[in-house]
Amino acid sequence: MARVVQKFGGTSLADVERIKAVARRVAREVEGGHQVAVVVSAMAGVTDCLVGWTRETSRLHDAGEYDVVVSTGEQVTAGLVALALQNLGIDARSWLAWQIPIRTDDVHGKARIHSIEVAELEGRLALGQVAVVAGFQGLGLHGRITTLGRGGSDTSAVALAAALKADRCDIFTDVDGVYTSDPRIVAKARKLDKITYEEMLEMASQGAKVLQTRSVAMAMNHRVRVQVLSSFVDAPGTLVVDEDEIVEQQIVSGIAYSRDEAKITVQKVPDRPGVAAAIFGPLAAHAINVDMIVQNVSEDGRADLTFTVARTDLERAVSVLQEKRAALGFTALKPDSNVVKISVIGVGMRSHAGVAQQMFQTLFEKGINIQVISTSEIKVSVLIAAEYTELALRALHTAYGLDALG
Amino acid sequence: MARVVQKFGGTSLADVERIKAVARRVAREVEGGHQVAVVVSAMAGVTDCLVGWTRETSRLHDAGEYDVVVSTGEQVTAGLVALALQNLGIDARSWLAWQIPIRTDDVHGKARIHSIEVAELEGRLALGQVAVVAGFQGLGLHGRITTLGRGGSDTSAVALAAALKADRCDIFTDVDGVYTSDPRIVAKARKLDKITYEEMLEMASQGAKVLQTRSVAMAMNHRVRVQVLSSFVDAPGTLVVDEDEIVEQQIVSGIAYSRDEAKITVQKVPDRPGVAAAIFGPLAAHAINVDMIVQNVSEDGRADLTFTVARTDLERAVSVLQEKRAALGFTALKPDSNVVKISVIGVGMRSHAGVAQQMFQTLFEKGINIQVISTSEIKVSVLIAAEYTELALRALHTAYGLDALG
Repeated sequence: MARVVQKFGGTSLADVERIKAVARRVAREVEGGHQVAVVVSAMAGVTDCLVGWTRETSRLHDAGEYDVVVSTGEQVTAGLVALALQNLGIDARSWLAWQIPIRTDDVHGKARIHSIEVAELEGRLALGQVAVVAGFQGLGLHGRITTLGRGGSDTSAVALAAALKADRCDIFTDVDGVYTSDPRIVAKARKLDKITYEEMLEMASQGAKVLQTRSVAMAMNHRVRVQVLSSFVDAPGTLVVDEDEIVEQQIVSGIAYSRDEAKITVQKVPDRPGVAAAIFGPLAAHAINVDMIVQNVSEDGRADLTFTVARTDLERAVSVLQEKRAALGFTALKPDSNVVKISVIGVGMRSHAGVAQQMFQTLFEKGINIQVISTSEIKVSVLIAAEYTELALRALHTAYGLDALG
Repeated sequence: MARVVQKFGGTSLADVERIKAVARRVAREVEGGHQVAVVVSAMAGVTDCLVGWTRETSRLHDAGEYDVVVSTGEQVTAGLVALALQNLGIDARSWLAWQIPIRTDDVHGKARIHSIEVAELEGRLALGQVAVVAGFQGLGLHGRITTLGRGGSDTSAVALAAALKADRCDIFTDVDGVYTSDPRIVAKARKLDKITYEEMLEMASQGAKVLQTRSVAMAMNHRVRVQVLSSFVDAPGTLVVDEDEIVEQQIVSGIAYSRDEAKITVQKVPDRPGVAAAIFGPLAAHAINVDMIVQNVSEDGRADLTFTVARTDLERAVSVLQEKRAALGFTALKPDSNVVKISVIGVGMRSHAGVAQQMFQTLFEKGINIQVISTSEIKVSVLIAAEYTELALRALHTAYGLDALG
């Protein structure tokens, strides 16, 4: 007997027929003798519609009322999945965040979970009742509904699995697992049987949108065994686990890319102590995150500084810096959103030299210029011109021996 | 300074533009220096859609999960109306039933309100904050969401007005008041400035679908001054008040009709004690309500018994009685759904004789046969063939002096 949390995304719950299919999938687990808690997203498209209504109604954002409106999508699917399970003869009931409760802070629209009271749920699971929990929502400090941010149902599921000490947290989605690279671009990409939390975290933040980054970090902190799998294909997915569970560790597990980056070059900044702080301070004050940074060698006491920000922040970042132009003393600002970040990811590179060198050599052989480089313990990232995205991904996939056989 | 509850129905909240119009209407009341609590229905059509999903998902009705799903419509509009008010610079927040709470019994799908805790709301109203309350929903005895039955938002509004001791409960709908008869049929029908609770109760139960019957009974019990008015036309509506508030009382206030009736004649039942109980007992056991009853004079120890049931119950009623045919000993059952019930309503008839006689005379002069008659203290109803509906309504409207001038 295992205790399992199963989370279903919006495409898996898009209409009544799919909701019934979800119920049949849950029923299999119940019939296997397991205790099951289900976490549901809203029907595909519903949350976007609700968000649209709040924006049309008021440009001013009262995030508290926004949460009241957008949290209803998961309430609907929680009730419907419970009904569909009952229709199969399975004891089930829906749970809203305020009923459990799933307590969060008061940051409406992107709240963080503080605690989940599971005593009542555990009692019912022990009696064989399936708990169908509305994802994405929480109960704030003052008794109001909060939401966890887009994709927050993943976090709901992992947090619930942690609180319930579940043996497994299955995330059912519209892809059948985590791949060595994007299979729409790299035809020879392979599905991974296992991936470590650290690698998954890098994959998620690099734009492989399978799991919300925050849910991966939470799974890592609480050592929740997460499985990513398809609700449409009946096959094992990818297990996200602790490093020591992976016996034959590859040096590189995957090649990720992100088109969400933009580059800014600040030309001929006076090269004196404190100048970096003077540039990045105002950006931080405007909540603009800076990712990769490179400063070239100084010439005549002036240097070029290049860094990347989220593409959606590019305009704001440029205008923040233009305002400080006199104080910063640079000659020109060059924004460029025609770039892509390519990352080679693998916990194996901790113990292997030459991973970065192989990346640079491979890109050089294809004639691809590297604009910025950044590295971490388990990742090497480069910024290149966007037009080389596909070429670079395929070349690196082959170079690191990730191609599927045959 | 007055304290007002304003309730808006689904057609008044059908889209974002109308929601903004509702906010402007509420704003006028606030700018008049009044304390305002708003009660909202779901957007027109949304509840039907949600109900449809629950039926498609499971023919078995778990009314608890049904309530979880269908109560979301009012949650959405509560949040949106609060946002729209804030957009006009008015302090407002939404309240869900579980947050107030509005406590009900546990009869999911048609719960009854037990109590409303208004201390917190009253404090906020006193500070000028508008409370936007989701109608139709309640909190059951075991912490689950309940709903009050279709049209239940009227009941939410009246109950809230009673609990808040509001000076007035304005029910905004798509008609501009209560008429002496259906203006689509009787061109000379007049809007009533005032109507008594008792009359409104009869009008509501006779098929004039302006207010949910239960909400009128509640308003009467708690002496809540209800006003029915249009959210699209800026004019006073009809006040539903205590009898002693109406100075010049008409003998007859309105002529109502109901097409929801069907007639059953049980032919040649043995005319002996207990036969009525033997017929109506099984119907009651199947939750079939019987309305009008007439038994003709016995002949050879047998009599015909005619009665009406809701048209939707007709088939079931017939099959229940057919099963008991041997025991009841009747010769034939004649169902007829081609009938209409016409009612003349007015508290003035308590002190005036001849009201019923005038009805019978008027119908006789038009050649309309009366099939069944029933009377109450303030109402005379007759069952006639459906084809005479319009003729009867217009003739009675003129006969009782209700026609508008000019």
